[in-house]
Amino acid sequence: MSGEFDLINWIRAASSSADCVELGIGDDLAVLRWPAGDLLLVGVDQVLDGVHFDSAVHGPREIGRKVMNRNLSDCAAMGCLPVAAVATVALPHHTGADYGRQLYLGLRDAGDIYHVAIVGGDTASWPGKLAMTVSILGRAGGVRPITRGGAKVGDGIYVTGPLGGSLLGRHMTFEPRVNLGRQLAASGKVSAMIDISDGLSRDLAHICRESKVGAVITAAMVPIHPDAEQMSRRPGDARTPLEHALHDGEDHELLFTAATAPGLGEIRIGSIVADPGVWMESENRREALQPLGWEHRL
Amino acid sequence: MSGEFDLINWIRAASSSADCVELGIGDDLAVLRWPAGDLLLVGVDQVLDGVHFDSAVHGPREIGRKVMNRNLSDCAAMGCLPVAAVATVALPHHTGADYGRQLYLGLRDAGDIYHVAIVGGDTASWPGKLAMTVSILGRAGGVRPITRGGAKVGDGIYVTGPLGGSLLGRHMTFEPRVNLGRQLAASGKVSAMIDISDGLSRDLAHICRESKVGAVITAAMVPIHPDAEQMSRRPGDARTPLEHALHDGEDHELLFTAATAPGLGEIRIGSIVADPGVWMESENRREALQPLGWEHRL
Repeated sequence: MSGEFDLINWIRAASSSADCVELGIGDDLAVLRWPAGDLLLVGVDQVLDGVHFDSAVHGPREIGRKVMNRNLSDCAAMGCLPVAAVATVALPHHTGADYGRQLYLGLRDAGDIYHVAIVGGDTASWPGKLAMTVSILGRAGGVRPITRGGAKVGDGIYVTGPLGGSLLGRHMTFEPRVNLGRQLAASGKVSAMIDISDGLSRDLAHICRESKVGAVITAAMVPIHPDAEQMSRRPGDARTPLEHALHDGEDHELLFTAATAPGLGEIRIGSIVADPGVWMESENRREALQPLGWEHRL
Repeated sequence: MSGEFDLINWIRAASSSADCVELGIGDDLAVLRWPAGDLLLVGVDQVLDGVHFDSAVHGPREIGRKVMNRNLSDCAAMGCLPVAAVATVALPHHTGADYGRQLYLGLRDAGDIYHVAIVGGDTASWPGKLAMTVSILGRAGGVRPITRGGAKVGDGIYVTGPLGGSLLGRHMTFEPRVNLGRQLAASGKVSAMIDISDGLSRDLAHICRESKVGAVITAAMVPIHPDAEQMSRRPGDARTPLEHALHDGEDHELLFTAATAPGLGEIRIGSIVADPGVWMESENRREALQPLGWEHRL
């Protein structure tokens, strides 16, 4: 058995540096130099055992990657450049320092791809289940951040890839669309953007609410992932492949609106309209699309 | 029963704004304007049920205050100005939205005192125990941040208040020394600083290690809190009041070193020496002081 400070010292030695970091892991706070005039973007996401992963099935390095990638996907959705991160881990008693090291290596695997420096954190052991968080700092770097609030009537609605069935494994292994999100934002054509974490139906409703518009999507245009087809065929599964694509969530593709297509491989699925609400057209019938995607019940 | 998004909407309506916040709660990330040339300080701390609080004893508002105050205490230890925060909460299933609102109000109670804007977060419910985190952003604002690494041989060692016995209640109700930390840093006299969270013996060892020096404290000079005396009198308690003051932790007073006393109410407890290690003198005997303060065992 070893202790928290051994683990912190190991992490400190293993950590990647970055130009902007004046003081990294090992003090009360990290100190960064921020480029003058550059907007700072900040957010946080957590992963919890039994909700976002299953520690009996998923290894610690995979879990570490997922929590970093969830945050990187938020950066993608704003079109910003990720810069630095701080993390927490609540380790169940007797998990062992090696497990903690693997969680950290997962964070670093995912962060290193985008030169994200892990500059601080908090490690504790407790009589509870494994919980991790990452808070991410990003910068605009000359590109205006894309919010959920800019969609305009007449805009097309687009996604960056096929949807549905992520629970078969992609929810742990998805690649955050950081570079694509940046290119989309830099194109100047994107009016609103979000990453699909709660499900297309719910995330599109977020854009509509923030933009004070409505949306109509065409059922036949929604790209369905093979995993959605596979899930639908499983015994006891009551959803069609389309329903999986609409509601499953954790795809971490980007969902955006634009007056003209940016031409970056996006797939058009519908249009922004003035009528509030989210609607789906199939065979000339228009129905309200209920947001069945993920919401934590309290 | 209500859902995550009702709670987020309630929080959004209840949140305080701040000049630097261009986009607050409700998008993938928050967007802040950062003052040109100002250093950015960032860190994170968590509180876990059964470790940092007991949800059977402590109310949600108290718990929310504690996690924010732990982070504000880190700002105090660096001498920086807290600016903004993001938070996560992992709520046990069926806790209810009102409990979530109370946790948030606790965060806000503590943050508002220092004009800290809560700009984002992540709420989830899970089959686990209550866990919360706050990540804090601070700025140097014209005062060089004080690290753990600047103590020099011959410096005095000081604390800002009496220590020990915080478990009797102060660990939930402490006031972070944000203003005092700022005054100490601005005095130009402080060479190294930390807040006492793991216990004087352990936190002083952190300063010594980072500064590559040693420390000698004088037993008779360590200010002992009445709570330390009270804990020591409890049946079965094997520690003296001094031992409680040396090792208990979660005092959240500041521990710092300085060549000349800043004259801000600090209490001198010893001196920095060249010999590595932490030593305690009592009645002309010098003994190594083992860091018995808090460390999470993995």
